[in-house]
Amino acid sequence: MNEMSRLRVLVWGENVHERENALVGEIYPDGMHQTIAEGIAEKNEFDVEIATLDQPDHGLTAESLQNVDVLIWWGHAAHGRVNDEAVQRVVARVWEGMGFIALHSSHYSKPFMRLMGTSCSLTWREAGEKERLWVCNPAHPIARGIDRYFEIENTEMYGEPFAIPRPDEVVFISWFEGGEVFRSGCTWKRGNGKVFYFRPGHEAYPIYYHPMVRLVLRNAVKWAAPDPERWIDSCPRIAPEDAPEPVTVKGPGIHKEGEAGFR
Amino acid sequence: MNEMSRLRVLVWGENVHERENALVGEIYPDGMHQTIAEGIAEKNEFDVEIATLDQPDHGLTAESLQNVDVLIWWGHAAHGRVNDEAVQRVVARVWEGMGFIALHSSHYSKPFMRLMGTSCSLTWREAGEKERLWVCNPAHPIARGIDRYFEIENTEMYGEPFAIPRPDEVVFISWFEGGEVFRSGCTWKRGNGKVFYFRPGHEAYPIYYHPMVRLVLRNAVKWAAPDPERWIDSCPRIAPEDAPEPVTVKGPGIHKEGEAGFR
Amino acid sequence: MNEMSRLRVLVWGENVHERENALVGEIYPDGMHQTIAEGIAEKNEFDVEIATLDQPDHGLTAESLQNVDVLIWWGHAAHGRVNDEAVQRVVARVWEGMGFIALHSSHYSKPFMRLMGTSCSLTWREAGEKERLWVCNPAHPIARGIDRYFEIENTEMYGEPFAIPRPDEVVFISWFEGGEVFRSGCTWKRGNGKVFYFRPGHEAYPIYYHPMVRLVLRNAVKWAAPDPERWIDSCPRIAPEDAPEPVTVKGPGIHKEGEAGFR
Amino acid sequence: MNEMSRLRVLVWGENVHERENALVGEIYPDGMHQTIAEGIAEKNEFDVEIATLDQPDHGLTAESLQNVDVLIWWGHAAHGRVNDEAVQRVVARVWEGMGFIALHSSHYSKPFMRLMGTSCSLTWREAGEKERLWVCNPAHPIARGIDRYFEIENTEMYGEPFAIPRPDEVVFISWFEGGEVFRSGCTWKRGNGKVFYFRPGHEAYPIYYHPMVRLVLRNAVKWAAPDPERWIDSCPRIAPEDAPEPVTVKGPGIHKEGEAGFR
Repeated sequence: MNEMSRLRVLVWGENVHERENALVGEIYPDGMHQTIAEGIAEKNEFDVEIATLDQPDHGLTAESLQNVDVLIWWGHAAHGRVNDEAVQRVVARVWEGMGFIALHSSHYSKPFMRLMGTSCSLTWREAGEKERLWVCNPAHPIARGIDRYFEIENTEMYGEPFAIPRPDEVVFISWFEGGEVFRSGCTWKRGNGKVFYFRPGHEAYPIYYHPMVRLVLRNAVKWAAPDPERWIDSCPRIAPEDAPEPVTVKGPGIHKEGEAGFR
Repeated sequence: MNEMSRLRVLVWGENVHERENALVGEIYPDGMHQTIAEGIAEKNEFDVEIATLDQPDHGLTAESLQNVDVLIWWGHAAHGRVNDEAVQRVVARVWEGMGFIALHSSHYSKPFMRLMGTSCSLTWREAGEKERLWVCNPAHPIARGIDRYFEIENTEMYGEPFAIPRPDEVVFISWFEGGEVFRSGCTWKRGNGKVFYFRPGHEAYPIYYHPMVRLVLRNAVKWAAPDPERWIDSCPRIAPEDAPEPVTVKGPGIHKEGEAGFR
Repeated sequence: MNEMSRLRVLVWGENVHERENALVGEIYPDGMHQTIAEGIAEKNEFDVEIATLDQPDHGLTAESLQNVDVLIWWGHAAHGRVNDEAVQRVVARVWEGMGFIALHSSHYSKPFMRLMGTSCSLTWREAGEKERLWVCNPAHPIARGIDRYFEIENTEMYGEPFAIPRPDEVVFISWFEGGEVFRSGCTWKRGNGKVFYFRPGHEAYPIYYHPMVRLVLRNAVKWAAPDPERWIDSCPRIAPEDAPEPVTVKGPGIHKEGEAGFR
Repeated sequence: MNEMSRLRVLVWGENVHERENALVGEIYPDGMHQTIAEGIAEKNEFDVEIATLDQPDHGLTAESLQNVDVLIWWGHAAHGRVNDEAVQRVVARVWEGMGFIALHSSHYSKPFMRLMGTSCSLTWREAGEKERLWVCNPAHPIARGIDRYFEIENTEMYGEPFAIPRPDEVVFISWFEGGEVFRSGCTWKRGNGKVFYFRPGHEAYPIYYHPMVRLVLRNAVKWAAPDPERWIDSCPRIAPEDAPEPVTVKGPGIHKEGEAGFR
């Protein structure tokens, strides 16, 4: 990414509920990914594209991913239909530096679970109850412009325990009307890439029209942007003659001259 | 695990180099896993079993894993031959609470990479050089009985950057004769399970006979033992009538009554 | 500490509200520290002593602290009356390995603030409202025996943001009737010592009689116990002739032979 | 800080060795702080000021600190002569958002120790030996422009264990000719403020003229800059009538109406 150029954001949506469920289709007539993309593009700060499950390679070719700075993911009903090779391409691109933002039910998406290494389970309830997201890290760039908290009047509940590795930072913790709490905004690094999980976004409610949700998403895109200088991940053999200190080969090796490491 | 009973340790070895490479076979005539197991069993503190790649299901059935408290893994040449279902069984058992200790070249093993979510790459050199492992966390149970450092006279080098998620704790950092450094002993939690990566253990050197390496392994087994009280990981729906606070259903749901969540 | 011997717990209470406020005195006629100590001693697992602000040296001499494995601290109205030298002795003993458990309003106590290095601020409200503490780390030893959550019917509220350094682990997150959330059980390591902050415990409510609060305290004592093998913290000069690798002195030094480092 | 304006950097030096030791005075005729400041100002990116121990209030008044975005600290022989009130002003300003960079022997400085909450001890040796700093986090902004490592030909050694709280990120690990290793570049957050410890900088060697050391310092200044939006740290009482959810006062309070919390 050129430091002067605009961040390139790809919003990926599985686009299943929107077409199969009348209620969801009514809220998101062009698909949830479209509404998410509009929220991110709202201030005309980024170049925003969309991709969906039913495109060839789910719209996630190695080539297209090279042109993405931050990938936003929404999936739910079709996690299992996402091709493992596409998942591996996404994960490898995160390691290179691409930001990755997993939304709501994407806690169970293949790329998020692969990046976390945990079961990512939680508890849930659909009752249209109120959620209040508290900022617990007020200086975090992702919370910029948010007051002490914001509310979502009607939503699905997600509750602790949330089976994630310890986050680098917890930005939001949610309070639910029905009595639960949840770490709703968490960050991690994986290789060069920054990862953000953000809880809001149930398909049966118009949550991606909420101005605070959209603000958090735009903040998160900026935060997750790759550093211009990327690290090319590899596993290089350092030949004895290239050691920083002079070494004499004193023992046998299992690898032949010039051979790559086993994977 | 019964708190009174002995910890059950399974040492898994791919057992390839030992049979295919005369040098390795000479150092480890019964296989590296056998020597590792002997080191762990040395003080008669644990029940130690072995399993290898060429057993049915690699010796890693769901049933056998239920009887393992701590799994120790050594792989290198045959990472790619480990069956993905076996990997998934190992990972799920770690989430339940089984300890997992990845040795040396197992940084690239499938279960370790799945638990980390990163590329796990590093640099390396085979020159039989000296390694000195410094204790940087002297109160850590894994370092118990180790003085300020210990040395391995001849070994392969692994160098930074080591592409892992930030460790919960770094227990050892290595100094190498050829000029590199490496975070040689690192811990993480994944679900209920504790994970330890320990660098020493190149197949071309008799490292698993080293008394300090064996001491670290025994310490690590004790540290990685599951807590007696286990959490059954799941993703339960909480029915509105079971909410801790009374909730009135105020909005639609996408899930049918009694339906499980999507995975 | 001898591994076979019982853990020695010291419960420190400022003992001010109990004597000056009739309401508090009625709930805790022998002082809050006494009730806390009884809860910890309930199962006869530990040797429990008490100490208070008005004892000589606040009951916190270097000698007495040497005989403490875990120190529990309750303070509120008299933080400023705690002597700085006593604070330094407590902090230094934590670095050596003594466990430290800070309760409720002790978030602003001198030893806790010194161990954290942050302002430790939060929001609060006295309305006798309900609190529900959720276990977000079900395999943590401090949560042993606790179901998914437990409740305190009437309590003071503490709300986020809680200005602490990122915890090593978050064990409990609280839900409050009035709409706030709070990280109510957090752990850190400082040197060899383990630190636990536990929110419940307002003086105007009989919270230290609550069986779940008492269970958490006993679990926390076990968790915070020092490892038998202690590290003596110091800043030793390594003489050039004692370097692990041979070094020739190639430059000047600012320290005279045998001199200690500057502090 | 105005986002468009230049970062304001204050370099604080105790300026003792430079005047009392001929060798140090020869290397740093205008004081180490002056050379450090020149390195930071080299590319004309920042507004750089200096302050020293012997100025009134050590040059660290509340007013002057309000105009500092990033404070760089070098101390050694005179840690004990730094006034506790000045330390408290520095620490409070870090909580507000000011970046803090502690150099070399400042591991034992009062502000750094107060921010860490640990003993900050290490081992050391003056032999003019070689140090090689490895980048272990290649995508970190502080490592920008640094290749895999850089070397300092002659320096004092610092060795592990380094008694710090677990860093948020470890950017550099050092290899020493005499056989030790050290976590030479570490980051933490304290309140809103970012803290970086950087090991190089012994007074008896011309280390602050080294181009890579200067590059790291400039990178660190940019990284440690406060976010424009600051959080005013406080401990507000939330009146029952201001609770996000309606609460009825159901119990007594210890605080009088409108009273501030105890500190």
